[in-house]
Amino acid sequence: MPHRYFTTQISGNTAQLTGADAHHLSRVMRARLDDTVILCDGQGTEYDGVITGISPDAVDFSLSAPRATAAEPGVDVTLFMGYAKQDKLEDEIRHGTELGISHFVPFFSRYCVVTPKKEEQKNVRYARIALEAAKQSGRGVIPDVALPMENFGAVCRSFADYDLVLFFYECGGEPLAKLLRPYQDARPGSQQKPRIALVTGAEGGFSEKEAEAVVAAGAKQVGLGPRILRCETAPLAAAAAVMTLTGNLE
Amino acid sequence: MPHRYFTTQISGNTAQLTGADAHHLSRVMRARLDDTVILCDGQGTEYDGVITGISPDAVDFSLSAPRATAAEPGVDVTLFMGYAKQDKLEDEIRHGTELGISHFVPFFSRYCVVTPKKEEQKNVRYARIALEAAKQSGRGVIPDVALPMENFGAVCRSFADYDLVLFFYECGGEPLAKLLRPYQDARPGSQQKPRIALVTGAEGGFSEKEAEAVVAAGAKQVGLGPRILRCETAPLAAAAAVMTLTGNLE
Repeated sequence: MPHRYFTTQISGNTAQLTGADAHHLSRVMRARLDDTVILCDGQGTEYDGVITGISPDAVDFSLSAPRATAAEPGVDVTLFMGYAKQDKLEDEIRHGTELGISHFVPFFSRYCVVTPKKEEQKNVRYARIALEAAKQSGRGVIPDVALPMENFGAVCRSFADYDLVLFFYECGGEPLAKLLRPYQDARPGSQQKPRIALVTGAEGGFSEKEAEAVVAAGAKQVGLGPRILRCETAPLAAAAAVMTLTGNLE
Repeated sequence: MPHRYFTTQISGNTAQLTGADAHHLSRVMRARLDDTVILCDGQGTEYDGVITGISPDAVDFSLSAPRATAAEPGVDVTLFMGYAKQDKLEDEIRHGTELGISHFVPFFSRYCVVTPKKEEQKNVRYARIALEAAKQSGRGVIPDVALPMENFGAVCRSFADYDLVLFFYECGGEPLAKLLRPYQDARPGSQQKPRIALVTGAEGGFSEKEAEAVVAAGAKQVGLGPRILRCETAPLAAAAAVMTLTGNLE
């Protein structure tokens, strides 16, 4: 299988890799003229790229016709994730990316055990974790990680942007299979991807008031079974369940 | 919600806690006579236990009628897990226990990056991780962790013990929903729990020969979507998918 690289330096039917990726391809992989790799624009479109030039700092390609990356799920999933301790948050981003989540939005809520600190700096690290996980798992889209939202009301107000918002809450709720039935054939390659948001809590969970606000804002409350899941396990179980029920995990 | 403890010291309608749990209950929780806790035998049966005696080393209880633990899934799931690096293997046991897996069987296969070493000693640690995760997630069964199997042929020969063996393989296979249809109503509280085995690989995956042997031994080959999952993510996605499709994750 040819190697895959992400690049935004695509122009018509040519493209270029520079920096660390160019070094990796030319020096580590010892690529030669006319070798083929897969180039992906990070937005779900990829090309076969035939090498037309190699210099110390850059590799040039001529491109095939574009195609949609086969590994992208047919649903556009956003994870609103309660801000957990950093190593757990990073695991959620890493494994969530593998499972097909496209947008991560950390938020602070009443029972979060951490408080905002150097978030711009941390965000650079989170974005890099998403990029590395996207490369490793063969994603066509590099998931974005938003700066954390500190206003829980603003989290709820953003729900209008989604076709379905699923609020995973320890008290249970409607059956997930029923709520996802309209999207059960949103397999990879679907034209119009339904926008689905998942909301999961931090270590301390949600206050009753917050839970009420989420549901009042239009989210559907669902459970993840009678066992108590850790805050870093819940989003992965939620993502796997949603991908299973929409035909994107088979 | 009353606290939960596991104990095997149950006799008729009385029970006893000793050791660290007795200390925790009497000293840390400052329990008193007539207080009630939940006592679980670790095999899926639990009781309300009313404290009838407190000594420095032991707490005595009189028990209610037994009941099945509500948090136990209606499927009895065994995870055959390729022996990964220790921290990953531990994550698989920890999160797998939360998701409802009841038996863990590590095995060595051709492309494992680790080799057997002090396995009796490590097994004690793995069992403790399963116990702690069972306590924290409210399980009624303490999952068992087998000593690793070093003979891949023996792994395959053990498949006869299961109603369904699912082999999660990067090349995909039959739709999971179709294979699990006979068990789609095996919700918590089911009388006869179907025995389902999941087989997932270590970092290096399976050799072609091993994959053929698994299928020849009766396993059904299934995929986990077009994205490449890490070896520690795959069993969690597999467990979440199976619990979702059998009504045990809602």
